[in-house]
Amino acid sequence: MDITEEVLKRIKPTELENSRIKSAIDDVLGKIEHGIEGIDAEPILVGSVAKGTHLKNPDVDIFIRFSTKYKREFMEEFTLALGKKILNNPVINYAEHPYVNGTYMGYDFDIVPCYRIEDSSKKITSVDRTPFHTEFVLKHLTVEGRDQVRVLKQFLKGIGVYGAEAKVQGFSGYLTELLIIKFGTFENVLSIASKWKKYTVISFKEVDDRVEYEKFKAPLIFIDPVDEKRNVASALSLDNYATFIYASREFLRNMSLKFFFPEFKLAERRIERGTGILHIMLPKPEVVDDILYPQIRKFMNTILENIQEFEPSNYHFYVDDNVHVLIEAYILDLPKVKVHEGPPVWDRNSDKFIKKWKGKALSGPYIRNGHFYADVERKEVTMESKILSIIKSNSIGKDLDRVSSMINFSRDIGTVDRKEFQLFMDKKFPWEY
Amino acid sequence: MDITEEVLKRIKPTELENSRIKSAIDDVLGKIEHGIEGIDAEPILVGSVAKGTHLKNPDVDIFIRFSTKYKREFMEEFTLALGKKILNNPVINYAEHPYVNGTYMGYDFDIVPCYRIEDSSKKITSVDRTPFHTEFVLKHLTVEGRDQVRVLKQFLKGIGVYGAEAKVQGFSGYLTELLIIKFGTFENVLSIASKWKKYTVISFKEVDDRVEYEKFKAPLIFIDPVDEKRNVASALSLDNYATFIYASREFLRNMSLKFFFPEFKLAERRIERGTGILHIMLPKPEVVDDILYPQIRKFMNTILENIQEFEPSNYHFYVDDNVHVLIEAYILDLPKVKVHEGPPVWDRNSDKFIKKWKGKALSGPYIRNGHFYADVERKEVTMESKILSIIKSNSIGKDLDRVSSMINFSRDIGTVDRKEFQLFMDKKFPWEY
Repeated sequence: MDITEEVLKRIKPTELENSRIKSAIDDVLGKIEHGIEGIDAEPILVGSVAKGTHLKNPDVDIFIRFSTKYKREFMEEFTLALGKKILNNPVINYAEHPYVNGTYMGYDFDIVPCYRIEDSSKKITSVDRTPFHTEFVLKHLTVEGRDQVRVLKQFLKGIGVYGAEAKVQGFSGYLTELLIIKFGTFENVLSIASKWKKYTVISFKEVDDRVEYEKFKAPLIFIDPVDEKRNVASALSLDNYATFIYASREFLRNMSLKFFFPEFKLAERRIERGTGILHIMLPKPEVVDDILYPQIRKFMNTILENIQEFEPSNYHFYVDDNVHVLIEAYILDLPKVKVHEGPPVWDRNSDKFIKKWKGKALSGPYIRNGHFYADVERKEVTMESKILSIIKSNSIGKDLDRVSSMINFSRDIGTVDRKEFQLFMDKKFPWEY
Repeated sequence: MDITEEVLKRIKPTELENSRIKSAIDDVLGKIEHGIEGIDAEPILVGSVAKGTHLKNPDVDIFIRFSTKYKREFMEEFTLALGKKILNNPVINYAEHPYVNGTYMGYDFDIVPCYRIEDSSKKITSVDRTPFHTEFVLKHLTVEGRDQVRVLKQFLKGIGVYGAEAKVQGFSGYLTELLIIKFGTFENVLSIASKWKKYTVISFKEVDDRVEYEKFKAPLIFIDPVDEKRNVASALSLDNYATFIYASREFLRNMSLKFFFPEFKLAERRIERGTGILHIMLPKPEVVDDILYPQIRKFMNTILENIQEFEPSNYHFYVDDNVHVLIEAYILDLPKVKVHEGPPVWDRNSDKFIKKWKGKALSGPYIRNGHFYADVERKEVTMESKILSIIKSNSIGKDLDRVSSMINFSRDIGTVDRKEFQLFMDKKFPWEY
């Protein structure tokens, strides 16, 4: 398979780069060891570099593993203070623990505190499990397998489904490694994935039919070999799962570098679709992406569920200084009148319907197909007013709620980012440009 | 119940009028008897006048009952020739037999041929049964009952559901008489009807639970006492049945002459509803109402079933020199683009979907909720073009098909009859004006 060679040529770090990375890591590890003298703790390299599956210019993850005798506050504060001293341009980020992000010799480093535990099922926080993942991969992934992981990672990146973070909802690095450990090669993973059905369960042990895997509520369930109760693919969305299946099929039919290195092209002009488009804007709340993106999705879905009358036909969102939601619909302005179906004429509740609407309806109550109907006045005629009323009666997430009063609507698409607008309109897969 | 007295005062023929009617009938009967000398046949008065349940200025039905030894052609030709000689302004109409309609002394007469049969279940055509109906009513309806029938008839007329002809789809005179025979008085009929449910079976014999009355496919089943296999109420539409139930309830709550003598009033101005209205016109084919009206209903229903995308919210038709169909809808012009849902990505047929739409769809195929979708070009964007394509691929009835090429559309409601337009918009019950 020539194409994987070509991909590797572009993405695999050279020996020279690897020795540069190694010396950066050795420096940082040495500085941490120095800093934790007298404390029952040790630094440990985890992540793709530790496993030899990293691409060019990798991010480096170093955990400081503390004895469980230390309190969480101590462990966290100690790590933050030390990390800030060691890294350049340090920033404190917040996941389950706070951690330090910064650079060293031009590489992006994370220094993260965790507890030293006996086995991964006894974790106190989810990061405590990470060193066990590193250990498992180092033990089971062959040297040839490492390059296969690299190619698969790049493929997943290219088709837009790499990364378990909330923004992407895709495949994590660890999941990519497990797929290669399980199925051997990049091509094998794709040929198996191309046949995946609605619901796939993968495990290194025998899959037990009596186990209710449905409880994971995920399209792909890959049982974590270091913690049977965990689905490694829990972050993967249905549509990213489906996109991977489809991309695998397409790639096996027509192996092209476009799947690995897609190139977006701006279209000359857009096709006239005859629909209405609404551009919704909210100021971006100051929260991390893993908090923000689930809220935006919830916001968009709450809107979509409640504007069915307008027949929404397409939706998209993106984030810059603002949160932008784009909705395309068959109708932006509904008629003032709304046909309201009542009970059958012979129903015991039909008198209530008559009492309620007689004299109040725009017309009726009248009879159609044995039922009472009334043409009533629609409360929210425009999509904008409908969305305002949805926001009033539904929470759209803690942080978006805070800015919801600053919501802004526009039917003029002039202020929409051109690339994002085209993604919204084309709905092409990345490899199709 | 004072109100029935008031109603009777307005609708019941006076003694003077009745003697005038009687002498007209005697004249016609005499002339028929003279004309059929030497033939094994006799004239027989049927209909409301025969049963003493007629209103002012009644139509008179006279049947000529022939021995079954005569051929149908002879019987029909003989009746037509004789009827044309006796009646003024004779016109030949066509039901199961042709018959003569004309006037005599200012009254409207029908002279209809039928066969003399032993019992009504041995009928050759349905009119052969009619004399048995007359006989049954004369035997079972009391003198007081006749006035109750008159009041009920006027009530049914007033609320717009009197007449079994295709144009009305309401209660026949015979059905009205049977209801009084069964339930005694006008008020009793209404108080029972006000409690009717979705499906009502009435019979003079015990209703047999084992009989599958559903086969009649009618909301009201009144077993004909002279022919058990026949539903007297078979012409009654679901909505006229429901209207009668509702009108009964309303009348019993608020007894008003408006139910018997509604007065339509033209509105000053119409309410702005924000919907689109399409006025469809076809030349009226030269056929009798009982042929025409079912075709118009079929035409309208075929359209309605096939324009759901436009969200039709109201419909109406009327006939003058043309057939007019009015449709109100949320949308008259749909967007050029149409979201077309395909199979799930993992479905074995999904490759076909991809092959079909790739490069042809306006956008996509793309993935949403695990399914492929494509935004395809809508063939019929306007309601007019959609209706033209419906007419092309569906028969709208033999006679309307002949004129369908002359169909005419207008979104300008200026040419719509004002009263019909208001009926279409208000959807009021007759007694509500």
